[in-house]
Amino acid sequence: MPTPVDLAAVLAGITQPWQPRTVALLNDYDLRVVRTHGEFTRHSHPETDEVFLVLSGSLTIRLDDGDVTLGPGQLHVVPKGTPHQPYSPDGAEVLLIEPSATVNTGDTPSELTAERRVV
Amino acid sequence: MPTPVDLAAVLAGITQPWQPRTVALLNDYDLRVVRTHGEFTRHSHPETDEVFLVLSGSLTIRLDDGDVTLGPGQLHVVPKGTPHQPYSPDGAEVLLIEPSATVNTGDTPSELTAERRVV
Repeated sequence: MPTPVDLAAVLAGITQPWQPRTVALLNDYDLRVVRTHGEFTRHSHPETDEVFLVLSGSLTIRLDDGDVTLGPGQLHVVPKGTPHQPYSPDGAEVLLIEPSATVNTGDTPSELTAERRVV
Repeated sequence: MPTPVDLAAVLAGITQPWQPRTVALLNDYDLRVVRTHGEFTRHSHPETDEVFLVLSGSLTIRLDDGDVTLGPGQLHVVPKGTPHQPYSPDGAEVLLIEPSATVNTGDTPSELTAERRVV
């Protein structure tokens, strides 16, 4: 019997910010939920676009051509190779969509680099 | 200046059910919003998985091993080659994620087959 993936239920089990959990696979892509809070490492993904869809709260993505601030139900695709810095002073819950091989800090390893974790 | 994609705003402009609109591209994948209502064509996609994420309302996906009913914030991935029939008696707003070449009725063309439309 198939069961739904409930994004809020998975997020309720996450306390640490910037620690994505893979909740579903789509071919060789991951759907990941992450709790954001504060400032993330500026980085880029030379090999892939990346989707940010805000589920609750507010997330700003700092880009060289301006910031984009997302609220619930709003998304932005950071193009391949584009430097970006997620910034979330008040916190947010976010759905990320990207190839399964994608590392959260891309080309800029930092103390926020996270292992891929599948729920 | 980058701007967010607002899923509710795009959906507000859609009146017809089962007519997806591509709101964003992720590499060679589409993110599509669709208004569902009533019964869709049973079909499968021999070449790809397909993500259904419900934004509002309720969507049932009939599968050979049981139905899965999704509410807001719940998703299901229909595996490649799996027959499925979306059914939404009371209506829903849904985000679909799938390769850009994917046709909504997959291997079963019907009067509900829709052209790919990019917002």
